[in-house]
Amino acid sequence: MKTLTDAETTLAELKTRVLAFAKERDWEQFHAPKNLSMALAAEAGELMEHFLWAETNASREIVRDPAKRAKIEEELADVVIYALEFANIAGIDVAAAIQRKMAANAEKYPVEKARGRSDKYTDL
Amino acid sequence: MKTLTDAETTLAELKTRVLAFAKERDWEQFHAPKNLSMALAAEAGELMEHFLWAETNASREIVRDPAKRAKIEEELADVVIYALEFANIAGIDVAAAIQRKMAANAEKYPVEKARGRSDKYTDL
Amino acid sequence: MKTLTDAETTLAELKTRVLAFAKERDWEQFHAPKNLSMALAAEAGELMEHFLWAETNASREIVRDPAKRAKIEEELADVVIYALEFANIAGIDVAAAIQRKMAANAEKYPVEKARGRSDKYTDL
Amino acid sequence: MKTLTDAETTLAELKTRVLAFAKERDWEQFHAPKNLSMALAAEAGELMEHFLWAETNASREIVRDPAKRAKIEEELADVVIYALEFANIAGIDVAAAIQRKMAANAEKYPVEKARGRSDKYTDL
Repeated sequence: MKTLTDAETTLAELKTRVLAFAKERDWEQFHAPKNLSMALAAEAGELMEHFLWAETNASREIVRDPAKRAKIEEELADVVIYALEFANIAGIDVAAAIQRKMAANAEKYPVEKARGRSDKYTDL
Repeated sequence: MKTLTDAETTLAELKTRVLAFAKERDWEQFHAPKNLSMALAAEAGELMEHFLWAETNASREIVRDPAKRAKIEEELADVVIYALEFANIAGIDVAAAIQRKMAANAEKYPVEKARGRSDKYTDL
Repeated sequence: MKTLTDAETTLAELKTRVLAFAKERDWEQFHAPKNLSMALAAEAGELMEHFLWAETNASREIVRDPAKRAKIEEELADVVIYALEFANIAGIDVAAAIQRKMAANAEKYPVEKARGRSDKYTDL
Repeated sequence: MKTLTDAETTLAELKTRVLAFAKERDWEQFHAPKNLSMALAAEAGELMEHFLWAETNASREIVRDPAKRAKIEEELADVVIYALEFANIAGIDVAAAIQRKMAANAEKYPVEKARGRSDKYTDL
């Protein structure tokens, strides 16, 4: 089996694989947007659990720890799988949605005002 | 500006854009895995809020409602942006991680056992 | 050991027990509000996992299922434990905060307008 | 109106108030455990949003900031309100559940082993 890489894999290819997995198992009946949003949030919670008690910067080490890294990659994969399946079911083009959102973010957080600051745009 | 589409956009292209946005604003200092996992979970929570009180199937209509759809696309975009930035910071190849996770899922949920069932694999 | 009950236990008693547990283990150093908010959200995610693929009404049965009920009670307990410890660390009187929030909610959701409707107050 | 305080308010009193609020608005139809668990997780996400980019210890200051404190108290109140309503609908005695969970935690995290350590019990 060919190994997928971010450099060569489009969003559409991943979405197709995720959808095929669900279709083969007749799981589309369970994949209502409500349920997928819950599953996504639950997986995001599991990803967070790796960092609960760590200092912010120490979390940069945790993701390099081989024993923990494999689990962290799995949780992140679960998050993106559910996000892509949500996009499948809702008919959302993820790349286009991200492009639009980043354009909006660029207006809310202009470089000269936002540089080096973590404040919300309403406080800049 | 060219419109991005899932059909033509690789994961790597999106990751590069997300990282560039953070770098321009000198935000990498804030983008520890711990913080990104929190932001991801918080955005997943916002996505869920659109479906809190709806019946499961009614949520399929909500994502078609033009007034709500724009907001839902934005929340999903936020989720994926933070997931990609997490992958940037942690050095994770998302496509490869998803491929591995789906292979593991295929073993836990063989088609013949899992078809039409939403049970956890430990209950199949 | 006396069994605690909601009828006879004040919030303050529970808060004191939760704080004592942390103090005995010298865990207050880890119990920054940021960390406790993450732990709370992660536990809320675990509670949700029991209901991901169920129809809304079927979830009313799930909580009656003896095998699942014990786990669900544990997840709910975890949520409230972290909420109370957050209140301990932040110096928040939970009962007073709830009273204030419910008064605000009563103004946003007057009985005559909100009866039988799940709309957000901005849509009533 | 008498101001409620943690020192004088039992869990049962708060649960009764929360249930009465829902009953008056005929909202019990929406308060399935599935929906309440989602609302709880979404509110936990909102609480987290106050601390996303802060250093762990800086979050101890954020909860003292008068401008932010009022909002933080509201989010915590929302979390506990939904937890109590979940307990109402599921018929869970919160104090008893917490007592049982803390007894289990005390076995997993004995004082002599857990003191000053944030490791998961499986790593102690």
